[in-house]
Amino acid sequence: MKKVSWKKRASKGMRFQTLAWKDTHLELIDQTQLPWKTVYIRCRDMASVWSAIREMKVRGAPAIGVAAAFGVYLGVKDCRSGATLAFMRRFQRVARRMAEARPTAKNLTTTLDRLEELVSQNLHERPLELKRLILGEALEIMAEDEQLCQAIGRHGEKLIESGDRVLTHCNAGALATAGIGTALAAVYCAVQGGKRVTVFAPETRPFLQGARLTAWELVQNHVPVTLICDNTAGYLMEQGRIDKVVVGADRIARNGDTANKIGTYTLAELAHAHGIPFYVAAPSTTFDFSCEDGSKIPIEIRPGREMIRDFAKQVAPRGAKLFYPAFDVTPARLITGIITEKGVFRPPYRTSLAALRGEESTGTHGPQTVGNR
Amino acid sequence: MKKVSWKKRASKGMRFQTLAWKDTHLELIDQTQLPWKTVYIRCRDMASVWSAIREMKVRGAPAIGVAAAFGVYLGVKDCRSGATLAFMRRFQRVARRMAEARPTAKNLTTTLDRLEELVSQNLHERPLELKRLILGEALEIMAEDEQLCQAIGRHGEKLIESGDRVLTHCNAGALATAGIGTALAAVYCAVQGGKRVTVFAPETRPFLQGARLTAWELVQNHVPVTLICDNTAGYLMEQGRIDKVVVGADRIARNGDTANKIGTYTLAELAHAHGIPFYVAAPSTTFDFSCEDGSKIPIEIRPGREMIRDFAKQVAPRGAKLFYPAFDVTPARLITGIITEKGVFRPPYRTSLAALRGEESTGTHGPQTVGNR
Repeated sequence: MKKVSWKKRASKGMRFQTLAWKDTHLELIDQTQLPWKTVYIRCRDMASVWSAIREMKVRGAPAIGVAAAFGVYLGVKDCRSGATLAFMRRFQRVARRMAEARPTAKNLTTTLDRLEELVSQNLHERPLELKRLILGEALEIMAEDEQLCQAIGRHGEKLIESGDRVLTHCNAGALATAGIGTALAAVYCAVQGGKRVTVFAPETRPFLQGARLTAWELVQNHVPVTLICDNTAGYLMEQGRIDKVVVGADRIARNGDTANKIGTYTLAELAHAHGIPFYVAAPSTTFDFSCEDGSKIPIEIRPGREMIRDFAKQVAPRGAKLFYPAFDVTPARLITGIITEKGVFRPPYRTSLAALRGEESTGTHGPQTVGNR
Repeated sequence: MKKVSWKKRASKGMRFQTLAWKDTHLELIDQTQLPWKTVYIRCRDMASVWSAIREMKVRGAPAIGVAAAFGVYLGVKDCRSGATLAFMRRFQRVARRMAEARPTAKNLTTTLDRLEELVSQNLHERPLELKRLILGEALEIMAEDEQLCQAIGRHGEKLIESGDRVLTHCNAGALATAGIGTALAAVYCAVQGGKRVTVFAPETRPFLQGARLTAWELVQNHVPVTLICDNTAGYLMEQGRIDKVVVGADRIARNGDTANKIGTYTLAELAHAHGIPFYVAAPSTTFDFSCEDGSKIPIEIRPGREMIRDFAKQVAPRGAKLFYPAFDVTPARLITGIITEKGVFRPPYRTSLAALRGEESTGTHGPQTVGNR
């Protein structure tokens, strides 16, 4: 594989760009059409960004956070009033609406909180200037996300040894972020560092992010990937064919409990039973320090009909109920380490994560990136 | 629900019959077309029975065992030679071929061993009489399977309490047997006994036996069923929404290790982690006492292309490998009890199952059906 920096690949080498701001609109790769078609959609107003998030045309917690920032800008940019008060009302309505797009990803509210902070600190400015500031902040959030991914990759790759067979779940790759991903950033950086890495991708029913997105982007980037059904991970672990598990996150509570795509908890229990390290990779924008533990994280229940359409034939008979929680919570006790842009945090998370929160001394509890487990 | 005996339902009330012998041919419900169409296919020769098993038009270990018996009969019935030696050669060729249809289900070889025993004990008979004996034995195997299911249901229902939410996997119901099923027999009998039972059916990728078959037959029989994706079982258990797990089996080793549909092992690990009883339900025809433990059970690896066709869109990009083991092995230590037609066997299985084998004293080690766990 030609050694281009992944950052360069993302802007040059990669054949796709998850999100891009094009002066007047947000351009998104429509992830519901992958891997069959590479279609870019243009979101020119807030409603279309909102729908794109809701319908999972753009998904992945960090990418949702970035898209939402532009969604807010598109939602206020046509505000005609020159009065700051009227503008603020519009801004708040737009932010509230955007927050409802999907409930579980923390990055969405992280973005909205950040924009609200920006606006409230600049209330002396006229609406025109506030709009300019919001757009600037959205661009900044996108650029930062790219850097966060790079840093996560650098810290994460140290945990991966040459020859590792890495099990992931759903898609925590370039398609889930504005950069090279979170869980897959570790893989990409390890591969670029010359390590041989094979990825096992569970297909991740019903939306099939593993089959459609993870397999697709890994193939695009020449990383060997084997697709399995979700029910096959336990068998592989029992056969000694998985060395590490690395997944992304949608929201991480103060104690390390982690919400991620439905099925993640099962993989964590299986990894625990087999003594396989289980890592979560996420930027600090995913942490919710107001959340005491995982029981407080809202779990999105999506329409059951999504189980039997779009990516499957109508496979259920009439009369059967359909139940589709989109996420589950993995308790901190099953997590070997949390890979962030600031390093790898280890248990006990309640103390180690306090450093990330920045409210308590980093002392001995800060991130440690030493060695693998 | 009208209280008809399930045996009556199977022959009268049920709107489908998994297999039936029609004088000249074996009639099978084509399970690859469910739940969309109820199509019966006629197998008039061995090759068509072999293909029906291979292509999973008929599936489920007990049903495979029954179908194979008729397959052997169809394979020898046109043998023109009046010489017993020539007939024997034909019989053995047919039996060998039939054994290759699928490797994991023990019931297939149980049937073939039984027919071979029959033939070798009647070598003094002319081919015409041997054919008659084989057909008689096939009919007997089918009738017995129906009775085995009834007995499994009677023993199994004692383990189910009213209000139970039972998680199963794949299809171990009427469609997997010539009777009312194995795991689902326990549910059917409990419901008929007036207990309220709800079933959670994982869809069971890639062949979707849970979505297509289990949900279908439960809906037909008015048993409440909720379909979930395979990756959702852990979440449900963690939420306290599963009371029992009951699954079928394709082969059970002497020590209780149990091969069943891929994903069963994962459910057993999850049940263990949550303190939820995990039961296997299977007739004695599923036991392989020549198998020391699960590591000796052959696991069928089916073509990866089955993951991305038939029941799914082409969801994987070119370049991704596909891996599809059709079964996994659940170690005996994770199994609370094995429900058979002779009662419920408990750990330690190496001694308790010896009674089933009939080679050692039944003494204190026989089946115990007392109480639930």
